[in-house]
Amino acid sequence: MNKLMLSLTVVLMGCSQGQKSSKQHSNLPSFPSKKIILEGLNHPWSIAFLSNKEALISEKDGNLLRVDLQSKEKYIIKGFPTDLTDSIRVIHFGDNSGIFEVLIDPHFETEPWIYMSYAAKKKGVGTTTKVVRAKLENDSLVNHETLIEAEPYTREYFHYGGGMVFGPDGKIYVTIGERLFWERDEPEIPIAQDVKDKRGKIYRINPDGSIPDDNPDFGKEAVPGLYGMGIRAAQGITVQPETNKIWFSEHGTIQGDEINILEARANYGWPNVTSGKLRSSDYKPPKLDGVSFTPPVWFWHHTVAPTGLTFYTGDEFPQWKNNLIVPGLSRGSLWRFRIEDETIKSAEELFLDDRVRIRKARQSPDGKLYILTDEDNGKLIQIKPQY
Amino acid sequence: MNKLMLSLTVVLMGCSQGQKSSKQHSNLPSFPSKKIILEGLNHPWSIAFLSNKEALISEKDGNLLRVDLQSKEKYIIKGFPTDLTDSIRVIHFGDNSGIFEVLIDPHFETEPWIYMSYAAKKKGVGTTTKVVRAKLENDSLVNHETLIEAEPYTREYFHYGGGMVFGPDGKIYVTIGERLFWERDEPEIPIAQDVKDKRGKIYRINPDGSIPDDNPDFGKEAVPGLYGMGIRAAQGITVQPETNKIWFSEHGTIQGDEINILEARANYGWPNVTSGKLRSSDYKPPKLDGVSFTPPVWFWHHTVAPTGLTFYTGDEFPQWKNNLIVPGLSRGSLWRFRIEDETIKSAEELFLDDRVRIRKARQSPDGKLYILTDEDNGKLIQIKPQY
Repeated sequence: MNKLMLSLTVVLMGCSQGQKSSKQHSNLPSFPSKKIILEGLNHPWSIAFLSNKEALISEKDGNLLRVDLQSKEKYIIKGFPTDLTDSIRVIHFGDNSGIFEVLIDPHFETEPWIYMSYAAKKKGVGTTTKVVRAKLENDSLVNHETLIEAEPYTREYFHYGGGMVFGPDGKIYVTIGERLFWERDEPEIPIAQDVKDKRGKIYRINPDGSIPDDNPDFGKEAVPGLYGMGIRAAQGITVQPETNKIWFSEHGTIQGDEINILEARANYGWPNVTSGKLRSSDYKPPKLDGVSFTPPVWFWHHTVAPTGLTFYTGDEFPQWKNNLIVPGLSRGSLWRFRIEDETIKSAEELFLDDRVRIRKARQSPDGKLYILTDEDNGKLIQIKPQY
Repeated sequence: MNKLMLSLTVVLMGCSQGQKSSKQHSNLPSFPSKKIILEGLNHPWSIAFLSNKEALISEKDGNLLRVDLQSKEKYIIKGFPTDLTDSIRVIHFGDNSGIFEVLIDPHFETEPWIYMSYAAKKKGVGTTTKVVRAKLENDSLVNHETLIEAEPYTREYFHYGGGMVFGPDGKIYVTIGERLFWERDEPEIPIAQDVKDKRGKIYRINPDGSIPDDNPDFGKEAVPGLYGMGIRAAQGITVQPETNKIWFSEHGTIQGDEINILEARANYGWPNVTSGKLRSSDYKPPKLDGVSFTPPVWFWHHTVAPTGLTFYTGDEFPQWKNNLIVPGLSRGSLWRFRIEDETIKSAEELFLDDRVRIRKARQSPDGKLYILTDEDNGKLIQIKPQY
């Protein structure tokens, strides 16, 4: 074989290989399948990737863990705030307390801050949502700082919120729930409609807890850091890569589960307007003068309990590029929304034959999609293409 | 350039072209888009393809047409049965009467039979669903034969059914609706639960209207041709290519829209069981002894009014192969179900931002997907991939 023939053969081999590979990964349809990566998690709530193989996982009813996705080893992070209260002590299913979100500082290599939200207790008073940060050193949290303490502490143990995301502007956006179960317990001005009450709001803060100068103005009496209001129970909050907009999920009472787009100064209406029904049928919200409400971009007719949503930007599912992935607790399926700008084009409910309460969907730095299941034996599951 | 160099260049060009084309049609995600093929149809109900470019279209409130998909020409087929009644004469939106299904004989070239279902009137008595066949000769129907006449004729003008499909066994399967609007009007034995009543049933007949010997046995008093019962209002019926099973859609009252798999002798439960709510809240169905009901394979929590469904077997959407496509009147979107055997794996609602009442989804012989919109200016629309 002369040199040119050899080159030609190499070219032909390369060509045919390229076509075969293209066929395997594109022509044949790929469907999502589940692969269990980790088990034995105690109602995991959130995951933050330190790398493609290492992550922090917050267990709602357990610990903050460092996990190795390859060796499957789990290490408990020491030094979690001692005022944490979780729902291990109770048998009531509706107890929402525990550890919620965990975020890693975007500049973690030089600024090893970990941001956490959780249900904090004050002895003899009650509980509330707290947002803290601490530095991670040798699997221990040190140099704790409190960023948000959503007083009042109350006896209610519902709807802490606790969703957090770093915005494209480097600020942290935080959801704080309204904390009530029954609307009949609302004060004269409903909690989420009262700018003086910290609950039922969305906040925008600097990573050190200070308030950005360019936050919207809700008036002198407003609680600091306020960015949006009229929130009942929002857990999932994420950034849309194509638009830099922030999207968040919200739980309704009877139906009324929603997806919203966050806008500065927006009022999402709770409890004055909802796409579902009020739980207290005899409750009449007061008339609020001069208030306009921002409608959801999507709501379900049935109960989904949407939680930690994320936009998909990986390569494994080309059809899903920039789609919004929304897990749900109640129906236990995974939702996929195809969106152009802010218009929802289609909605797909996945895993109809394999339902499990899902708390969070997240992507690793290399674009792999993971979910966390809300179970006693909670799991980290990778959503993989199956050809 | 010597000969070998030329060959090499050709190989490289071919190779790169191949990759480009593969990329265009596979690597890049394809999304469904709508292309209007024909307009000016009067509430079209069904379409039957004579070829890839010619079809018969039944207009619910008009005529049976022969249409040319390329030249856009429409020809009225003469000789449609004169006892047809449609809803042109009334303004009541809920009038379901008109022309329904149109099927072409599988051996049309030698046996040019056209099968049609429609609302027939009898003067001074009322209307009912009729299934007829006639030979198509020079755009005229001749040699009419009545295959099913679903007496009694009544004053109700709801829920005629009229869905028809040729089974893989060469038999025709026909849905006949229950014809009531209010459950409070049910006789002692509900219509759809009474084997002596022709309404609210699914039939299996030979193409000439005779009854196959191997039909299920519903007892001596049963109406001839009976195959399934307990039907309220079913319009869509289609064959699943992978299993040869027959699937059909059914309208509920308040919610309760369903997809069912047809089984010989099955009872789908109406009005004794429904996945929705009864319209007459004071109506109590009688207890039926020794009757077991077949549950739906899918039901919606909201009102969809699912109609003429079809399995997709084309090549344009590789991800959709063998998926069930279900149009709906009420939500105006198009549903896509990924199914393995009889298990629904995922459900996608398409065209959320472009809703229109859709009566039928059908495929041309060359695997292109079409829908018919239920409008005064009804349209034949092709669902095309958009890259």
